Amino acid sequence: MAEVYSQLVAEGWLTARTGSGTSVAERRAVDPGPGAAARLEAVVPRYDLRPGEPDLSAFPRRAWLATARKALAAAPDHLLGYPDPRGLPQLRAVLAGYLARARGVAAEPAHIVICAGFAHGLAVVCGALCSAGTGTLAVEAYGHQAHRGIAEAQGLRLRPLPVDGQGAVIGEVAGADAALLTPAHQFPLGVTLHPQRRREAARWGGVVIEDDYDGEFRYDRQPVGALQALAPDHVVYAGTASKSLAPGLRLGWLVVPSRLLDAVTAQLAAAPATPSGLDQLTLAEFISSGGYDRQIRRARLAYRRRRDRLAAALRRQDLHVTGIAAGLHAVLELSRTDTERQLVARAAGHGLALEGLETHRAAGQGAAEPGRAGLVIGYGRPPEHAYTTALARLCAVLSADGR
Amino acid sequence: MAEVYSQLVAEGWLTARTGSGTSVAERRAVDPGPGAAARLEAVVPRYDLRPGEPDLSAFPRRAWLATARKALAAAPDHLLGYPDPRGLPQLRAVLAGYLARARGVAAEPAHIVICAGFAHGLAVVCGALCSAGTGTLAVEAYGHQAHRGIAEAQGLRLRPLPVDGQGAVIGEVAGADAALLTPAHQFPLGVTLHPQRRREAARWGGVVIEDDYDGEFRYDRQPVGALQALAPDHVVYAGTASKSLAPGLRLGWLVVPSRLLDAVTAQLAAAPATPSGLDQLTLAEFISSGGYDRQIRRARLAYRRRRDRLAAALRRQDLHVTGIAAGLHAVLELSRTDTERQLVARAAGHGLALEGLETHRAAGQGAAEPGRAGLVIGYGRPPEHAYTTALARLCAVLSADGR
Repeated sequence: MAEVYSQLVAEGWLTARTGSGTSVAERRAVDPGPGAAARLEAVVPRYDLRPGEPDLSAFPRRAWLATARKALAAAPDHLLGYPDPRGLPQLRAVLAGYLARARGVAAEPAHIVICAGFAHGLAVVCGALCSAGTGTLAVEAYGHQAHRGIAEAQGLRLRPLPVDGQGAVIGEVAGADAALLTPAHQFPLGVTLHPQRRREAARWGGVVIEDDYDGEFRYDRQPVGALQALAPDHVVYAGTASKSLAPGLRLGWLVVPSRLLDAVTAQLAAAPATPSGLDQLTLAEFISSGGYDRQIRRARLAYRRRRDRLAAALRRQDLHVTGIAAGLHAVLELSRTDTERQLVARAAGHGLALEGLETHRAAGQGAAEPGRAGLVIGYGRPPEHAYTTALARLCAVLSADGR
Repeated sequence: MAEVYSQLVAEGWLTARTGSGTSVAERRAVDPGPGAAARLEAVVPRYDLRPGEPDLSAFPRRAWLATARKALAAAPDHLLGYPDPRGLPQLRAVLAGYLARARGVAAEPAHIVICAGFAHGLAVVCGALCSAGTGTLAVEAYGHQAHRGIAEAQGLRLRPLPVDGQGAVIGEVAGADAALLTPAHQFPLGVTLHPQRRREAARWGGVVIEDDYDGEFRYDRQPVGALQALAPDHVVYAGTASKSLAPGLRLGWLVVPSRLLDAVTAQLAAAPATPSGLDQLTLAEFISSGGYDRQIRRARLAYRRRRDRLAAALRRQDLHVTGIAAGLHAVLELSRTDTERQLVARAAGHGLALEGLETHRAAGQGAAEPGRAGLVIGYGRPPEHAYTTALARLCAVLSADGR
């Protein structure tokens, strides 16, 4: 729990006061009067090139609402009752088809579980792994601190795996019972897991949680299919609507191998948190009507253009970003962590939020030493009209002396 | 975990096969082709007077969608991003006002947490209690088996409290660290906690989880305010939209005392399962526009009429139902559990689903002995057009020989 506390302090939910315990941070918690929205707005930086969120202004509000209306009009009353804790059969059936087609996932609807976003799914799987006797989870040495915190809070010990130019070094997985990987587009480094490493991961035999957070966004080559297809008995596939639509929907899905299905179902019964039945019906209708594919095609085109503009702008400064074949972020490697920190601070002075690799580094044994330095540039996040300025500010920050 | 498994088996999610472990039940899990909806329908009984669900056909579909449209049109983009794991500030502020007005709850928005229905909230609170050192939870000797299962799965030992004509016997709470109560309308027995008992519960000092599942539906007297108002430092108030609107929305709320706020927040970070931001905005708008109050007034009137018809119909057979001052169910006490079982079985033969008190009895030390017998008649569930027939069948079942 100490880990979770320090994470909450770091994220500003709690305030640590030496000698007086922790208390909930005042910033977001009090007095939600008329001024609250403005104050919340103030926390949002003017320009934001941090990774982790898509362009929220591109969420298809009108199409989503029209679909919700259609789905609700067609829904018999009983679908408004307590939903199956594993998710509505309708959505699970539609997702089985979609995931096979779009990501090569091998899934029966009976193996699909709907969750409230990836973090919820991860907590459920980690809880299930623990109850099934798993002790140690290998995690990529660079990845989301929040995800590591969730795994630890569920009782798992972490074992960082180095990440090199071919992705996570699967050969180092020995000693762990399970592994959390981002095979299609390593977060944050951006590499795709090398085919040889994929085969190693598939043959390993331990449970692999495949975080396919941005698998739909592939630009230069044929999509890399899900690792799950190589080893459906060992891999838990995890997908989400947080990048393809919006994180605010809190919709994600797991494809669970037979060996974990009972343990996962028991976790869902022990802490039921199924998303709204209406939202599940809406997503099912959005996918089967083709609206979801259309939205992804549109977004893929827009993000690809942004990526090209980012790469071109930096090339003019003789800088080279990596990890750009997919996803919504790229990495600008730097030689020193000092430089990384200076650039993040300088950007903040320009009203531009940036994130360094340091934020994502796992601590402890097996963690990459010496630490790499770099900026993780999330080009997905700004609304379309703000991207030009965000890019210009990034270039200004990078072209100044001291890099 | 054994408890959760047997509960899942009981609810049909898992199939227990002697000597071969458990597997997920086939019934709801396979082949979701065109026939699936029909097959799912077949599980729903023709007439249903079990408690636990409101009339789903009364869900205000049109008003809810219109409100969603309005809420989404007014929402700035950032509200589509990752929501505060405690819920959107907008909804928490609106709920603080609503709960004070409608239920007498004393709550700052900072103490309100949005959860995915009561069961999710209960899991979060039980997890928080455990992490704060609570070992034993007193539960009413009659109550939801699923709720007891959740508390146990989170690691709490249960201690059943007898329930008499004045509600839970608070004097027996000694030895427990916390208690789960339904003060406004005991589930399933229907008694209101006596004012003297309320004072005892408020003075006790252990944490009380107040399950106010149907607090809005009060018919004959002034509403009984929330117990939380008497002891906001000790009582976790838990409310839900599952009875007032529909369980499928998966929206509930907690009012958390200061002493548990950090532990609850840590639980939410360890397994984030916040409901959709859009749904939270929609509920906030629905409450502040007056739509929620209108819906509750309309439903209260309809349910009151149904209750009156039930009481009158049974009176004509010289039968007397109890627990009818509030809520969506009444109890017909019987002298023997045998009779209860026979009536439930006979009703099933008439296409009528009924539930006996036995379903809700807690096992173990302190549980009511000898067990009471009775039928828990949920008059909220049938759609309006089916209520007359449901009632007629109930009367037919009760008037036959052998009671």
